[in-house]
Amino acid sequence: MKNIITISREFGSGGRTIGKQVAQKLGIEFYDRDIITKVVEESGLTRKYVEHYGEFAPSADRFAYSFVGLDEDGSSPLTQLWKAREKVIRQFAQEKPCVIVGSCADYILRDREDCLRVFLYADDETKEERIREIYGKVGLKLKNQVQDMDKRRGLNYQYFTGQEWGKAQNYDLALNRGSLGIDKCVQLIVEAAEE
Amino acid sequence: MKNIITISREFGSGGRTIGKQVAQKLGIEFYDRDIITKVVEESGLTRKYVEHYGEFAPSADRFAYSFVGLDEDGSSPLTQLWKAREKVIRQFAQEKPCVIVGSCADYILRDREDCLRVFLYADDETKEERIREIYGKVGLKLKNQVQDMDKRRGLNYQYFTGQEWGKAQNYDLALNRGSLGIDKCVQLIVEAAEE
Repeated sequence: MKNIITISREFGSGGRTIGKQVAQKLGIEFYDRDIITKVVEESGLTRKYVEHYGEFAPSADRFAYSFVGLDEDGSSPLTQLWKAREKVIRQFAQEKPCVIVGSCADYILRDREDCLRVFLYADDETKEERIREIYGKVGLKLKNQVQDMDKRRGLNYQYFTGQEWGKAQNYDLALNRGSLGIDKCVQLIVEAAEE
Repeated sequence: MKNIITISREFGSGGRTIGKQVAQKLGIEFYDRDIITKVVEESGLTRKYVEHYGEFAPSADRFAYSFVGLDEDGSSPLTQLWKAREKVIRQFAQEKPCVIVGSCADYILRDREDCLRVFLYADDETKEERIREIYGKVGLKLKNQVQDMDKRRGLNYQYFTGQEWGKAQNYDLALNRGSLGIDKCVQLIVEAAEE
């Protein structure tokens, strides 16, 4: 039995929904937005900063350094964010079996053998359906923004981990939520986690 | 129920073994080396040529053009190889439900909605174990050759399909045979194929 399940996901692939259902079926904890709250507490950074750089890649826009100054040990806020994130996720994983969505948890917990690393992705049609659910309709601008969101998630992951996001070899299990559907994804993850 | 299961795989990830067991469990046909025999018949190319360019990417070594000349319609032997491969695989898939290992079948059958596209990969340790089984011991030269083999498979796939090999988004299901083990991989593929 795998004690920890990490879910990395493209936007619109139903990562939260699938993660929650997996946690319910296995009777274990589910962490998603809770991680941000804990990282804010842990790091002393603002929620806005943590949310922004938890999702997007630091760029040359200087925003990354504009909220807070250097820590007393001279580390930048980005390093503080990463350190806090590592600490929070390791702590969650230490306390009890759980499902963790996002936050590079697959990389942070890469040395734990009882961790199942899942990647969820979807075709454009499925993603657009999801955007329609959230925003009502899909304009070209929104479509571009969503494509942008995945690119940013990828860059963020690469920035912090040095690994390529969405490369099958970095996961135990990669599932196409578009072709398989939500229920089948839940079923396969549960099955993969069980002995 | 998915009628066709295509398995793309890294060397040493147990693609043949897993594919055979899946076919047995589902009571459907299994095609692997049979494809080469059929492509040889279909294309009029030599077995050596089909085996070589069925696995490796055409390069500047001119070997690709040294066995046979241009076809009567002016197409190169590489085009003949690809056309024959497409025809053979579409025919197999048309006749009855089956598992097909290798030969870019996932790409050739990309428009069939009843096709489950699987990618199997493994970590270096698992691959070395497999080489040890086949060759007795793992020297540095052999190790490099195996790494080379995956690179070549990747280039071959890219040459013929224009897609990236091993990119999760090109498959329905990507499984790490190293961490999951053979039995679990078989179980998950069967489960994903069933309604």
